[in-house]
Amino acid sequence: MAPPRRRTAAEFQGNGGLMPPSVQVFASPCGSGGGGAVTTNGSDKSLRGKKPRGDTSVHSATKDTGRRRPAGRMPLWLVGIFVSLAFNVAALPLLLQQYIVNQPHHHHHGVISPDQQQHACAPQPGTSGATARAPSTGKPAVTSDSVINLDHGDPTMFEAFWRETGDAAELVIPGWQTMSYFSDISNVCWFMEPLFDQQVRRLHRTVGNAAVDGYHVLVGTGSTQLFMAALYALSPADADQPMSVVSTAPYYSSYPAVTDFLRSSLFRWAGDANSFVGDAYIELVCSPNNPDGAIRDAVLSSGAGKAVHDLAYYWPQYTPITRRADHDIMLFTVSKSTGHAGTRIGWALVKDREVARRMTKFVELNTIGVSKDSQLRAAKVLRAVSDGYAAAAGGATRHRLFDFGRRKMVERWRMLRQAAAASGIFSLPEETSGRCNFANETAANNPAFAWLRCDREDVEDCAGFLRGHKILTRSGNQFGADPRYVRVSMLDRDDAYDIFISRLASLK
Amino acid sequence: MAPPRRRTAAEFQGNGGLMPPSVQVFASPCGSGGGGAVTTNGSDKSLRGKKPRGDTSVHSATKDTGRRRPAGRMPLWLVGIFVSLAFNVAALPLLLQQYIVNQPHHHHHGVISPDQQQHACAPQPGTSGATARAPSTGKPAVTSDSVINLDHGDPTMFEAFWRETGDAAELVIPGWQTMSYFSDISNVCWFMEPLFDQQVRRLHRTVGNAAVDGYHVLVGTGSTQLFMAALYALSPADADQPMSVVSTAPYYSSYPAVTDFLRSSLFRWAGDANSFVGDAYIELVCSPNNPDGAIRDAVLSSGAGKAVHDLAYYWPQYTPITRRADHDIMLFTVSKSTGHAGTRIGWALVKDREVARRMTKFVELNTIGVSKDSQLRAAKVLRAVSDGYAAAAGGATRHRLFDFGRRKMVERWRMLRQAAAASGIFSLPEETSGRCNFANETAANNPAFAWLRCDREDVEDCAGFLRGHKILTRSGNQFGADPRYVRVSMLDRDDAYDIFISRLASLK
Repeated sequence: MAPPRRRTAAEFQGNGGLMPPSVQVFASPCGSGGGGAVTTNGSDKSLRGKKPRGDTSVHSATKDTGRRRPAGRMPLWLVGIFVSLAFNVAALPLLLQQYIVNQPHHHHHGVISPDQQQHACAPQPGTSGATARAPSTGKPAVTSDSVINLDHGDPTMFEAFWRETGDAAELVIPGWQTMSYFSDISNVCWFMEPLFDQQVRRLHRTVGNAAVDGYHVLVGTGSTQLFMAALYALSPADADQPMSVVSTAPYYSSYPAVTDFLRSSLFRWAGDANSFVGDAYIELVCSPNNPDGAIRDAVLSSGAGKAVHDLAYYWPQYTPITRRADHDIMLFTVSKSTGHAGTRIGWALVKDREVARRMTKFVELNTIGVSKDSQLRAAKVLRAVSDGYAAAAGGATRHRLFDFGRRKMVERWRMLRQAAAASGIFSLPEETSGRCNFANETAANNPAFAWLRCDREDVEDCAGFLRGHKILTRSGNQFGADPRYVRVSMLDRDDAYDIFISRLASLK
Repeated sequence: MAPPRRRTAAEFQGNGGLMPPSVQVFASPCGSGGGGAVTTNGSDKSLRGKKPRGDTSVHSATKDTGRRRPAGRMPLWLVGIFVSLAFNVAALPLLLQQYIVNQPHHHHHGVISPDQQQHACAPQPGTSGATARAPSTGKPAVTSDSVINLDHGDPTMFEAFWRETGDAAELVIPGWQTMSYFSDISNVCWFMEPLFDQQVRRLHRTVGNAAVDGYHVLVGTGSTQLFMAALYALSPADADQPMSVVSTAPYYSSYPAVTDFLRSSLFRWAGDANSFVGDAYIELVCSPNNPDGAIRDAVLSSGAGKAVHDLAYYWPQYTPITRRADHDIMLFTVSKSTGHAGTRIGWALVKDREVARRMTKFVELNTIGVSKDSQLRAAKVLRAVSDGYAAAAGGATRHRLFDFGRRKMVERWRMLRQAAAASGIFSLPEETSGRCNFANETAANNPAFAWLRCDREDVEDCAGFLRGHKILTRSGNQFGADPRYVRVSMLDRDDAYDIFISRLASLK
């Protein structure tokens, strides 16, 4: 077999990121800069309830013409000038609004002014953030004309659930708390908060999706960091060749990007596991799989090879819980289980102490541990999830995350299949189901991403085709698959999803 | 000149970490395991205001002897048995306490029971965290017999200040907040919270230690992550050789460790900048320097070389603010400015937009951004710092972090110089001073670490010598310097520092 193809230098730094070129559309300047960056924290959504600035500001230009009323009767030609001027002034904001709405990366909820537009295009460094009022609120809200960005798995669908829980998952952090680097010096993972460890184990016992007894729990800044930590831990320091890292196509687009961006000589991406030949490897097994939702096992079985199981989606809202997973290394993330992507918390269940120790060393060298504020927030959130399923909570209202999630995913997949059928030019993976031991019922697989294929003969690049219809997705070629496929996020907010569905249904 | 020495494979994985072998003392098992790990979260300090468990529980064993008063007169031999039994029972906890106190890495404030001790030695995976009650409280409290660990710059000295501020720096995080990956898609650093950006700029304007106008602010999971991001951003993808990374000795021990642990072919540690020959390099300039507190400038000046300025200690508590720094890349961290090491937040001020973009890409690939909870906490803390120096705050109590910090550091250095003089076998860097524009006075340098040298002829390994006296420090050889030097943290809690001082003064 030919040696694994090494990416060119350009590819390392270019398109290998988690934010494919479509996001570059958001980030690239589009004109000369000036003033401050427009933030997307949606000043209309600040915690202090500020009112949106209406478009009166656009009209303010007319206030300073400095004209005075001439004394006596006005000549007709002067009247004509006034009338045409007034017409132009009235028409201008309408034209601008059309123009700005059709600039996909500058649609902001509420006010749109040319001044803000210019600022948004190329923010002058040094002034951004000057008007910050509140914590951010993610991507801007959308309207029926917006570009709908479903390229990333931004899990804002879950916001609605957490709003309903009131203060059950609220965290208060006193100013003097958890200032030290150290959390528990007697633990292998010395920077891990015991409360977090406790709630992770409790949640897995509640859901039954993974064994925890006899496992070390490790915390990371997202499961992305723990993925790198696993590569570091499983790659011998003294090998002649980098350890080959493989996964069966279609594989998560981040695997090659994160494996190779530092061009480590410890490990190197070696492509599709199905075509890998060799004794030593690290096989990444993602199940349910990103991007296509397939239920997977490892395909390689050499004695010298190691598997890392990415179980980010192995939760009841996406898939039946058919067994208690007990692999050597299992990765999970708060981003996809509870929806708290902004908290940046993932965890690993690791059987082998030495592997756990080396993964911990990676996180130590990379970021001297993991934010304790994030860990405590994740612990509070996980606790609220488990509490929702605790036996006999008296008269307390129960907030059941997985019930909410499963209902939403069932509904969204129903809508999607209906829209694909209405369109006629798209196909989706077959629906599969299984016995869910958690919910005690048969349940379908409702993956977090739709692996959508464009069946039109003349469309070879589905992502490009959809982009032309203002729907941003991630091309199949990022996943080692045909560009007729795209990966579409099923986890965005209702407003974005609904527009996506209606637009998809109309495509022919 | 000989080519830069490449570290051996063993060195990559061995002792290059931020947690040198001395920490292995804490982490290694010391007996057969059983039950749960002992956490250091100090249940006596939980947010719910639980009372500390005093050592009455140790005596509880005496309460359950179940003795009843015998009817009638007791035979003398029976009385004798009872008396000796009572004596044994009373003596047992005293003996245990002695034993446990002398186990340096298992000293816990409050209750000490042999059961907890066993658990602490080799926690059985699967059960740690089972008894977690509250957020952690860092390293355990110490007594006059403890091993004093000043190897790391754990900034718990600042806890006392933040306790005094009441709720000025308290953060409340609702369950539904900042769930998205995105903070501000119009910013180069799209995962950075605008509130954080705002408070960083405000603080620098308040202190006058760095220019911010015309700079991009980037956030990282500690400045350690931003250090790696800078190496990534400044190393061309298509070079034949890894970019050389240098710093003048004594340099921060993490620089070689973090640069090389992944054996990236993009960049590689190349040692002491003073002996570097070449046109292309990245020079790390830490000022005030870690470990010796020296005020530094770049020493190399080739046109193709780049400097990264690590200004972690350029704050008034450590050094006079003599100028507004305006280098191309400047790194700061909350860990050393406010003491919130556990929050894991650092920031970079970057002039060049393309460099800022590439550093952002690093953080994206490494951890898909930075925890928003941590950013919002840091923003709240930084706001409280700036508020303390805001003009005319009416009758409000002002909490002045840098005043507190400078007072503490002055006092601690006074005590240290006194102790070194009393001992007679140690020397310290000369005291230097300068005009502080922030405080408007002349101020001495009071570095966050003491660069202590053992002058006894027969002591070649100062760290080993001090370890024998139960003081843990970091050997000079970790910093590219002579092992007669050690780096000692000046930032630990009063109890640990005071014991260190009295112990140091007694060494001959």
